[in-house]
Amino acid sequence: MNEHFRPVALEHASRLINHGPTVLVTSAAGAQRNVMAAAWSMPVEFAPPRIAVVIDKSTFTRELVMASGAFGLCIPGAGLVDLTYAVGHASGRDGDKFSRYGIAVTPGPLLGMPMIEAGCAAWLECRLIREPHAEEAYDTCFAEVVAAAADERIFAQGHWSVRDDNEVLHTIHHLGGGSFARAGGVIRAKSP
Amino acid sequence: MNEHFRPVALEHASRLINHGPTVLVTSAAGAQRNVMAAAWSMPVEFAPPRIAVVIDKSTFTRELVMASGAFGLCIPGAGLVDLTYAVGHASGRDGDKFSRYGIAVTPGPLLGMPMIEAGCAAWLECRLIREPHAEEAYDTCFAEVVAAAADERIFAQGHWSVRDDNEVLHTIHHLGGGSFARAGGVIRAKSP
Repeated sequence: MNEHFRPVALEHASRLINHGPTVLVTSAAGAQRNVMAAAWSMPVEFAPPRIAVVIDKSTFTRELVMASGAFGLCIPGAGLVDLTYAVGHASGRDGDKFSRYGIAVTPGPLLGMPMIEAGCAAWLECRLIREPHAEEAYDTCFAEVVAAAADERIFAQGHWSVRDDNEVLHTIHHLGGGSFARAGGVIRAKSP
Repeated sequence: MNEHFRPVALEHASRLINHGPTVLVTSAAGAQRNVMAAAWSMPVEFAPPRIAVVIDKSTFTRELVMASGAFGLCIPGAGLVDLTYAVGHASGRDGDKFSRYGIAVTPGPLLGMPMIEAGCAAWLECRLIREPHAEEAYDTCFAEVVAAAADERIFAQGHWSVRDDNEVLHTIHHLGGGSFARAGGVIRAKSP
């Protein structure tokens, strides 16, 4: 882990994607590995932490995920917006995207998935829960989060801390066509 | 529809939740109706427009959705942050939340679901696709979007237009515990 990353307790892992950020899906099987962008993911359970992510059946990522039964979700900060859009537009079948874009990885602690830390706010290492019908009909892959970590400058003690001084780590949310909104301007709702 | 709402073409409907906003799930069956907040939803397909949303099996909303086979997703703007948090903390079993909070609705054009326009950026009227296993195992409900509309001040011609002068309609993204990030500060990624 890089100097700013700290483990996130599993009971807090679903909070990392609770607010709908665009993520980078990382995968590896045998000698091959890949990274793609995905706007479509969500938690489905807090405890145990479970998530769903849409991974199109035509993608190289889907092939690797089905082969290994695992993947990573890395949450890019605003500083990685160009990289996020770029890896969403190239296929890993045409060459290793980590090498092509100079992306450093660290192995996930339980499943060895390639995790991206530099420029990311957090990551989740996930074990696929095989659901052939949902995978086939909706390209929806369910998974259990088995490990998670976050940059303590933006997520610590189980909570996001989105501030003006950590803008480069604010999560990004794809509006379409390469336009991303940043999650900022935190509002605290009145206690009901 | 209120004066600012315009129909959204179905091929653009998934874009309304592409960036992960917190939504209000509206439902109705017989003489009963309800509204709850949900942070966990995502598109699963652009054409036909299909979505997934997590609706806990203990909720009154789930009961109504299973009875009617339909629901609405309304996307609250930043001005509705207190209301969003409030309807996420009260149960419709204890009385009609639309009346309690003074929420005006308009009937969805195809399925008659109660749609909220004032203060919302957009809405999607959805027909449940029965998937008993996903509903039971993950509380995940799949649906097809059959109609959609948006406030033209923030979504027009199939695109979001998030600007400083429409902040009150910026979507909100629940970080947890009543803290919401606003989707703002749009960044345009470099063309890859």
